[in-house]
Amino acid sequence: MSEVSAIRGLCAKADVGIDGGRSWDIRVRDQRFYDCVIADGSLGLGEAYMRGYWEANDLFGCISHILSCDQLCAHKNYGWRTSLAFLKARLLNVQSISQTRSLADVHYNLNTELFEHMLGPSMAYSCAYWLNAATLDDAQIAKFDLICRKLHLKEGERLLDIGCGWGGFAHYAAENYGVEVVGITVADEQAAYARELCTGLPVEIFCGDYREFPTAEICFDKAASIGMIEHVGTRNYRTLFSTVESALRPRGLFLLHSITSPVSSEVGEPWLTTYIFPGGVLPSMRQLSESAERLFVLQDMQNIGPHYTPTLRAWLDNFEAWWETASPYAKPSIWNSQEAFYRMWRYYLSSCAAEFHVGGSQVAQLVYSKGHLPGCYTAAR
Amino acid sequence: MSEVSAIRGLCAKADVGIDGGRSWDIRVRDQRFYDCVIADGSLGLGEAYMRGYWEANDLFGCISHILSCDQLCAHKNYGWRTSLAFLKARLLNVQSISQTRSLADVHYNLNTELFEHMLGPSMAYSCAYWLNAATLDDAQIAKFDLICRKLHLKEGERLLDIGCGWGGFAHYAAENYGVEVVGITVADEQAAYARELCTGLPVEIFCGDYREFPTAEICFDKAASIGMIEHVGTRNYRTLFSTVESALRPRGLFLLHSITSPVSSEVGEPWLTTYIFPGGVLPSMRQLSESAERLFVLQDMQNIGPHYTPTLRAWLDNFEAWWETASPYAKPSIWNSQEAFYRMWRYYLSSCAAEFHVGGSQVAQLVYSKGHLPGCYTAAR
Repeated sequence: MSEVSAIRGLCAKADVGIDGGRSWDIRVRDQRFYDCVIADGSLGLGEAYMRGYWEANDLFGCISHILSCDQLCAHKNYGWRTSLAFLKARLLNVQSISQTRSLADVHYNLNTELFEHMLGPSMAYSCAYWLNAATLDDAQIAKFDLICRKLHLKEGERLLDIGCGWGGFAHYAAENYGVEVVGITVADEQAAYARELCTGLPVEIFCGDYREFPTAEICFDKAASIGMIEHVGTRNYRTLFSTVESALRPRGLFLLHSITSPVSSEVGEPWLTTYIFPGGVLPSMRQLSESAERLFVLQDMQNIGPHYTPTLRAWLDNFEAWWETASPYAKPSIWNSQEAFYRMWRYYLSSCAAEFHVGGSQVAQLVYSKGHLPGCYTAAR
Repeated sequence: MSEVSAIRGLCAKADVGIDGGRSWDIRVRDQRFYDCVIADGSLGLGEAYMRGYWEANDLFGCISHILSCDQLCAHKNYGWRTSLAFLKARLLNVQSISQTRSLADVHYNLNTELFEHMLGPSMAYSCAYWLNAATLDDAQIAKFDLICRKLHLKEGERLLDIGCGWGGFAHYAAENYGVEVVGITVADEQAAYARELCTGLPVEIFCGDYREFPTAEICFDKAASIGMIEHVGTRNYRTLFSTVESALRPRGLFLLHSITSPVSSEVGEPWLTTYIFPGGVLPSMRQLSESAERLFVLQDMQNIGPHYTPTLRAWLDNFEAWWETASPYAKPSIWNSQEAFYRMWRYYLSSCAAEFHVGGSQVAQLVYSKGHLPGCYTAAR
């Protein structure tokens, strides 16, 4: 039982008890929990949760404690599956065009009903802005508006939205700022949804990879990419920046909204990339600066990372409420089990909320200009 | 005369005439002008100006045209002296402690009277903030206040000011925000001036290199470094960041105010590093991000580069007004000539004003935190 005592020791350092009485303590339901964590670190912890080997009344609190301590899931403790992921990232372009399509199949085409209930009417699948907002939908609209104001959108301008998702931002910008928008998404179902949503507005949706978009044809005044570069992969940042640069007129502005990691890495968190975002990896400020050099001038940066915790918690509440009432036919499954999917999704949203709560990742809004701006750029807040 | 036609061709591309009638045209006074520029690029252009080989009624306009075009002074056209500087930067730590002292002797101990007249009562030797200011002094005070607000200074906090110059910011922060300040400067005359200026306030001045400062002794709540990292050298950025990190309490804030280059380089502009700032080199966002990784979390960035043009033009006006009335004993000289010094200084301020006017460099105000902040950081503007 040396594994048990090793795990107990690590948990104690994180102030998480095993079978204790506090809301964030771990209750072990199956002894295989210990093997999973020893063998696969953070990947094993998540898998053990999916399999029902452990519980916590306050899953968010439990993972927050663990991440603060950073012992259980430290990079050095990665098991062999993680090492394999590192190797793969070095040898292959994991985020190739064909791989990206398969990511879209896995995640974004998953189940529109789930996302509609989880994300609410804005259908925005990125960090909201809670500065003057009390509800998720208000906070997502506030985020859309913040981005429009940071881009200094003016009527009649042309805006490129790379990674437009279900079209929520394109719709908002076209309706409220009178701009013409071209949105790009790689997921068929998102493209269809976005076209429907934006009916009657000057919004065009291009369904394809950003590398397939014919930038030479149209010149854009502004560009935005909201929560999409996390899927792009470190090898392709430069290509993304140079695609946007080619599409913009001189002095055009580009707003990049991205989760960032304080540490440069070529691979993402093992559990998340296995079950939620295949090929996902968070850029660091260092990697973004390297990739933007000579293409763009950075004008403004704001970290809104702490806003992601209430966003993710609101998504979790919405997801749980939907699950209770949803038809069994609408519920996705994994390993042929709807229960495992439910636990996977709870673990996904709770662990990400915890990650932002403890500051393990940030959310950067960066405003770049193509070349020099005549006056001083002033960013909205 | 192939040199003459080569230079004329380059000037024509920049829309600068040779011996034309426009205010920004070059009037050649001595044919050696052509040799200087051909042999040494931007270094030769400046030296030829110092020697009186050429004139322009609007020196700022002339250099702005040249820099916009970027033909005459392109990096590829550097002469052998510049190549030597590249080599030296690779082989030596040009910004060693002893070299830094000699920089201080050359520049900051130069002539306090000159700086008093050029900089005005704030004695601030960095980009001012003209958002709601009409005079240089108001704009410098506005910059001081912006930094205090970005640092969220609170009464009783301890502030470290690395590169405090003549103590203007330390004085402002102590007097208006009730903080205790330790200022660091390497220049004896600045230290003496700063101590005098801050009499009666809780301000202590440490005269020495930042690498000599005993960070272990005092724990600071906040730190600022305003217009100093430009002297630090690419090899030492990491040391500077880690010195500040050691000096700060957890969750402490660090404001870095620096001119930045859009392109990473290990050496500075050849004329400026030869005559004005030996060992000076502008960091890029890429170099700063690399150096801050794992030490700090970037919370906010603002580019105020366009504010440097009016700042430098105000310094030029002040310098010229002083020169007209100053005692001959107070005027510095170079090459045993006060006239050459005067031309050198005009060229320095005019060419830097032009550089910011055309966006060849930026001014970044970066706010870093030591570790995670509990709430969302909000930056003043």
